[in-house]
Amino acid sequence: MAEQIRAIRTRQNILLAAAKIFEQYGYPAATISQILSEARVTKGALYFHFQSKEELAQGVLAEQDQRLIVPERASKVQEIVDAVMLHAHRLQTNPMVRAGVRLSMDQLALGLDRSGPFVRWSEVGLELLQKAQAQGELLPHVVPAETADVIVGSFAGIQSMSQAICEYQDLVGRVSALMRHVLPSVVVPSVLASLDLSENRGATVYAEALKAVEEQEAIETVG
Amino acid sequence: MAEQIRAIRTRQNILLAAAKIFEQYGYPAATISQILSEARVTKGALYFHFQSKEELAQGVLAEQDQRLIVPERASKVQEIVDAVMLHAHRLQTNPMVRAGVRLSMDQLALGLDRSGPFVRWSEVGLELLQKAQAQGELLPHVVPAETADVIVGSFAGIQSMSQAICEYQDLVGRVSALMRHVLPSVVVPSVLASLDLSENRGATVYAEALKAVEEQEAIETVG
Repeated sequence: MAEQIRAIRTRQNILLAAAKIFEQYGYPAATISQILSEARVTKGALYFHFQSKEELAQGVLAEQDQRLIVPERASKVQEIVDAVMLHAHRLQTNPMVRAGVRLSMDQLALGLDRSGPFVRWSEVGLELLQKAQAQGELLPHVVPAETADVIVGSFAGIQSMSQAICEYQDLVGRVSALMRHVLPSVVVPSVLASLDLSENRGATVYAEALKAVEEQEAIETVG
Repeated sequence: MAEQIRAIRTRQNILLAAAKIFEQYGYPAATISQILSEARVTKGALYFHFQSKEELAQGVLAEQDQRLIVPERASKVQEIVDAVMLHAHRLQTNPMVRAGVRLSMDQLALGLDRSGPFVRWSEVGLELLQKAQAQGELLPHVVPAETADVIVGSFAGIQSMSQAICEYQDLVGRVSALMRHVLPSVVVPSVLASLDLSENRGATVYAEALKAVEEQEAIETVG
């Protein structure tokens, strides 16, 4: 067990170093030996977890998926809003999430398949939108797959713009504005009127999700 | 006059080389000597036009602004749609426009101020939205500066997603979907019903703008 925890820590340590090196030198120029000396681990330890620079990058990219679970809501549209606002909040506050998003937006990393995060986020959105549709939350013309792609793509650009202009200081305001612009074309008015699209929604959901994790851990410790 | 044309050609030649090198190595790792040997110009010629790597990057970034002028429309909202769809069309077809957009989306180019294109596109959008508001095209709650930022940011992400997934093959479809999702929250219904948001709008506007440039040049030759 202790060994397992050590392995997880080493892996995380290597990913943090990789994220830092990719950020500093860009994916094309970064080298594994730079990542090795940043992580202060042996070559063997690194290759035990990751076979190549591409695998390291995929590891960093995947970090943004390991999001806290958004609490279930009666309104599936609110659940989508919560997932989006939580992600914005984590982008503002968590360096690994930020590194993953930066890498997936790096259009210069031509050798790297960056489609993963886009596709995975679209799938999350699609599933929630289909549930929303099944319970009558969506306007009749809506095509869930198209709307999911519009939200995921738009979010990616809004965060990039916020980072370029002010290092994410205005991110939650911009994402809230995006939701207010897109959802009226998607959601029936009665649902729209009951949504919480406020700027601090992400922080609220984060606190709620964290509390759920802590309670789960407390149960496991007792058990 | 011949000398002036030569200088413009040299400058364009250097920018193309710089775009290629930034694309290949990433902004942080690219060097001026790589750009020199790609452009096949002398050091003196390069430094006559650009003092530093940063200036070269700013030159590449600025290329996306030198867009063909969108023909005036009675509906200023249609003019916004035309500017957006024309830009999507040029992204699909023009390598220099593509290089500028890629560089402005390079979140790893930390030493480079990438806010320029975002800010300039937002200004173009703001001006058109203010005109649209003045002639009663917008819903009463709309704040033009906020809507301009949502459109510019969303577009940036949609193009990045399209590039990551299929090298821009589905770009115009995705941008058309973005317009259909955002504009119903912005525009009065009677204007909305008369807009052309179709996928081939960009190609149509491009042909129209090109014809206008050719006619202008014909007049200047005769005069």
